[in-house]
This record gives sequence, C-alpha cells and structure tokens, in this order.
Amino acid sequence: MDFQPNIQTSEKPYVIGLDMGGTNSVFGIVDQRGNIISQTVISTKAYPDVSDYVAAAVEALQPCLEVAGGIDNIKGMGIGAPNGNFYTGCIEYAANLLWDGVVPIGKLFEDALGIPCRVTNDANAAALGEMTYGVARGMKNFVMITLGTGVGSGIVVDGKVVYGCDGFAGELGHAIVDRSPEARQCGCSRKGCLETYCSATGVARTARLMLEKSDAPSPLRNIAPDQITSFDVFQAAEAGDPIAIEIFNYTGEKLGHACANFALFSAPEAFVFFGGLTKAGHWIMDPIAKAYDEEILGIYKGKAKLLVSTLKGSEAAVLGASALGWEE
Amino acid sequence: MDFQPNIQTSEKPYVIGLDMGGTNSVFGIVDQRGNIISQTVISTKAYPDVSDYVAAAVEALQPCLEVAGGIDNIKGMGIGAPNGNFYTGCIEYAANLLWDGVVPIGKLFEDALGIPCRVTNDANAAALGEMTYGVARGMKNFVMITLGTGVGSGIVVDGKVVYGCDGFAGELGHAIVDRSPEARQCGCSRKGCLETYCSATGVARTARLMLEKSDAPSPLRNIAPDQITSFDVFQAAEAGDPIAIEIFNYTGEKLGHACANFALFSAPEAFVFFGGLTKAGHWIMDPIAKAYDEEILGIYKGKAKLLVSTLKGSEAAVLGASALGWEE
Repeated sequence: MDFQPNIQTSEKPYVIGLDMGGTNSVFGIVDQRGNIISQTVISTKAYPDVSDYVAAAVEALQPCLEVAGGIDNIKGMGIGAPNGNFYTGCIEYAANLLWDGVVPIGKLFEDALGIPCRVTNDANAAALGEMTYGVARGMKNFVMITLGTGVGSGIVVDGKVVYGCDGFAGELGHAIVDRSPEARQCGCSRKGCLETYCSATGVARTARLMLEKSDAPSPLRNIAPDQITSFDVFQAAEAGDPIAIEIFNYTGEKLGHACANFALFSAPEAFVFFGGLTKAGHWIMDPIAKAYDEEILGIYKGKAKLLVSTLKGSEAAVLGASALGWEE
Repeated sequence: MDFQPNIQTSEKPYVIGLDMGGTNSVFGIVDQRGNIISQTVISTKAYPDVSDYVAAAVEALQPCLEVAGGIDNIKGMGIGAPNGNFYTGCIEYAANLLWDGVVPIGKLFEDALGIPCRVTNDANAAALGEMTYGVARGMKNFVMITLGTGVGSGIVVDGKVVYGCDGFAGELGHAIVDRSPEARQCGCSRKGCLETYCSATGVARTARLMLEKSDAPSPLRNIAPDQITSFDVFQAAEAGDPIAIEIFNYTGEKLGHACANFALFSAPEAFVFFGGLTKAGHWIMDPIAKAYDEEILGIYKGKAKLLVSTLKGSEAAVLGASALGWEE
C-alpha cells in the first residue's frame, strides 16, 4: 500500500522477480535498470505441496544468487502470481494452481530466503514493471491493460497501485460492456465482460463470427476457427484481408470505448497496453484510439496517451514482479 | 494530493467551508466534530467581477469570524466549487458561474484572509465530508455518488481523494451505461451517460416515459411530466402506485449495475449515496442493492456496503468543503 519504487537509494543492487504461472515459474535476478542478470525456471505444477515448490525454487535459485554475489546483494523479492494479494502476501483460491485455498507464498519465501517478499497479481506486477523500468517511468497516474488469455488491469493512482479494501482492485477485464441479449458469456459466469471481446479467445470468437457472416475469401478460412490467434489475424490484415481488418476494428472499438469509461475514474495520463494483441500494431491501436477519442468526455479529450509496453514480452512478467522487490 | 484529514492534531479549532453554487455561496465555520458554529450566505451571481465577490465574502464572514474568536482560530479554508481543481486551486471554465475561463479562487481567498485555502469540486468535497464527519469515517476506500441535478462522484483510494493527472478524476456520472439506439442524450453531448438516468431530470424523464407507455392510473398523472421530482415519485410509491415503484426499480437498476462496474476499479468498502433521490429510502436503495448484487464480480460479492449519507442535506456541502480546510 505504501509502495514507492525506491531504486535510486537502495544499497543492495538486485531484486528477485518471480513470474508464477500455472505451468511454469520463471525467476530472474534484476538490477536497478531492469536488466535480468540471471534467470531460472521450475515447473509450478510438478509440486502439489507448496513447501516442495519453495524448496525446489530456492535450490534452483542458488546459481543465480552466485551470479549476483550472494543473497546479501538482494534487496527483496517480488512475486506476480494468479490471485496474489498484496495486503496478505497470499495466493487466494487461484483456479489454475494446484494449491487449494489460501497459500502464504510471501511468508514461505521470506522464511526460506531471509529477505522481504511481496506478492501481487500479474496485471498489477505489469503496471509496476512499466512504472519502474518501462514506458510509464515517471508517470503517477496510468492504467495498465494486459491482453492475454484474459484481460487484466493494474491501476496506478498518485504513484501507487490501487489495491482497494481487499487487495483485489483493478479487474477492468470484467467491466460489463454489453448488456444486449447477444452479450457474450464470460468465464466469470456473467455476460458481456470486456474480456469476452478483447482476450485471445475473444478475438478468436470474433474471427469465427465474422467469418460465418460473410462468404468473402480470407486467409483465416485456412485455420480451424477456434485456433485463430491475433497473430494470424495480424498476418491476414497485413495481406490486406478486409475481414481481418474488421476483426481488429471491432476489438479495438470495444477496448477504446471501455477505456473512455475507465478514464472517468482516475483521469490517467496514459493507458499502457501489453500482450499478444498489441503485436498487431496500428491495426489494433488505431481503432482503439478512434473509439477512445469518439467517446472520451470533453474535459479529458487529448489528455491520455495510448501506449504499448516497451518491455520485452518474455521478460516483462519477471521484471514486473521484480519491481515489487525494491519496496522498503 | 497529500490530503489526510488531520483534525486530531490541529491546534486551531475551526475551518471555513465554502459551498459555492451558481446562485448562492454558503460559508460555514466548522469545528473538529463537524458542527457549523456560524454560517453566512452571499449571492454568487451578484458579482460579475470575482474580486468584488471575494471582498463581499470577506465582509460577510467578519461576524462569523468573531464567533470563532478571530481568524487566528481558523486553520484553513476549503472551497467546493463547480469545476474546482484541487491541483491548481482554480475554478476552470465553470459553465454556470459568471466568471469566464480560469479563476484562481484559492489564491484570492488566501490573499484576502491570510490562511491556507484549498479548492475542489462539489462531489469530491462531499466525499471528504463523509470521510471527515460522516458515514465514511475511518474508511480508506469508498466511492461517493451525488445524485442531484447531475450525477457526481468522488473517489477515495487509500484515504485520499483521487484527482488524477489533471485534477478532474471522478466523473462517474458520465459513464456510458447504454449504447443502444434508445440511449438518452446527455448534456455533455454524448449519449447513454449514467446521469441521464439517475439525475433529477433523469428520474423525471423516466417518469414521463413510464406514464406514457401505460394507461394505469397514477397520482403522478396530476403533475406536469417535466415537473415530476423524485420526491413526488416517492410519495406515489408510498401510496402504492405501481408506476412509481417501477420508476425507482428502473433507476436503481441502472445505478446498481453501474456501481458493480465501478467496484472493479477500486474495490471499495462502501458506496455512499447522497442527494434528493436517496430520500426515497428503500424504494430506491433496494433496487440499487438488488442490481448491484446481481452483477458484482464474484470476488467482490458482499464486500461493499451501500450507504446513504447521514449528513444533513443543508449542511453537507459546507461540511464537505470545510473538510479540505483541515489539510496541512
């Protein structure tokens, strides 16, 4: 809650970042400029008992720590984990992890490594990463939107991530953006969530619908409909396929309109987009900007930049998690 | 930005609150418990020159200051004004004031009174009032919704009002909640804003539509359609009028669904509602709660209280503004 990146005054030159996914856990030792000086991976799902997981992690980390000159050079550790709660340091009821209920992952690593350890979820970690090392350096008010399997968000107000009363603030992917009878079913059991349009599966679903409602030729017809990725759509758009372009226009419109509503909350100076969809470049960013400009309330017009993360995709999650490690 | 109510440690026992409207300006001297010990009013619109306005205000304040034992007993002044900007201390392009452009109202009062003077808009002032003296005392994360001529909001995150990058954060009344062809035209030039459904004119509009689409008798038919207030609807509902009840159900549903989306942002521990509509009691609050519970994302279920302001309507705006005066 009192997080302020404090990398300038730190005497210890490194932090550990852990990007925990349902399948793998990536650990990186990160310096104050966001360079990953050493990295290791263990399987997350190979350890049904979280104590075994932590023990395996600590063992895997040893060579990395040697590169860093030992644990005394590590200021702290940050963990980005599904349902990671900053306030409690726990993973709480994460659906895609083997560990049931509430797992005190922060405490477990603190005890094992003897350094402070902070926990948050992936999207908040991404926001911290952008603020500490990325395109949001120096910004005090911005909204991070992560476009992956789901749509996540991390909201920074006044230089701090918004955690809310329970640690779970910032679930903008579940903003209901369609209340019509055709609103899409979301995995959260509700209908019309932003995520159902702008996640990877949302884009694939849009592709399928667009292909069904027309007979026009499209390179996307060569791909099984539920296998279409935003990269396939990007390639088709680059080749001039009108259906692919229409898919991005539709997706970008949903996202741009949603962001115009989000701006009312925190009057951010930027939205930072991250994830596979952003690789489509202007094909997706132009429709987002168009829809945003169309709908943004007058007093906010022209104020927020729409930015794409500049952190390398493969490193962003570890960097984001590591940013938490600089905290006092 | 660094506002924290600091009333316990203040040595000076009073603050001045100014509730500035387009017609009148109400000044109150307020003690640390939120008692208004003295109050005065001047016309806002009688002074086309803001310097004359400030001079008239200072003169009108003299008897009040005597009651307080002089200006040395006043810690500071808070101003709640249309388009009041906390960062700049200015009123910026307020449509319903005579003064054009950017008016440095905070500086003008500081120079005239020799005490610190802070400025914000009405809805943010209301949030501060609830946090300092009202139903949100002790809360660090809540959303204030003011239901009046328009719909305003003040968002408190981590004990501080969210001002955003430009001082104008928190315009949730302009969240677009309907994108259908029937979406209502808003005064902001866009369509489907929450305000078009839940403001005083929004409720009157709903009443007119509901009366038109049915032939059922209703006491509301005795009132000119554009004159119907939420109090009229309340009286009709109390008398058992199904149309009146339907008006509140419709209005409450729009508001409850909107709040369920707002909760995604800051995971508040409460929504605090203020304004004429709340006087309808359970007739409006029950539909809000029903719609909110229906749509709130699983992880937030049962967490946020839906509260009605307990500050007296006539005092709330002055108290809210005065809360800014405690700031260091």
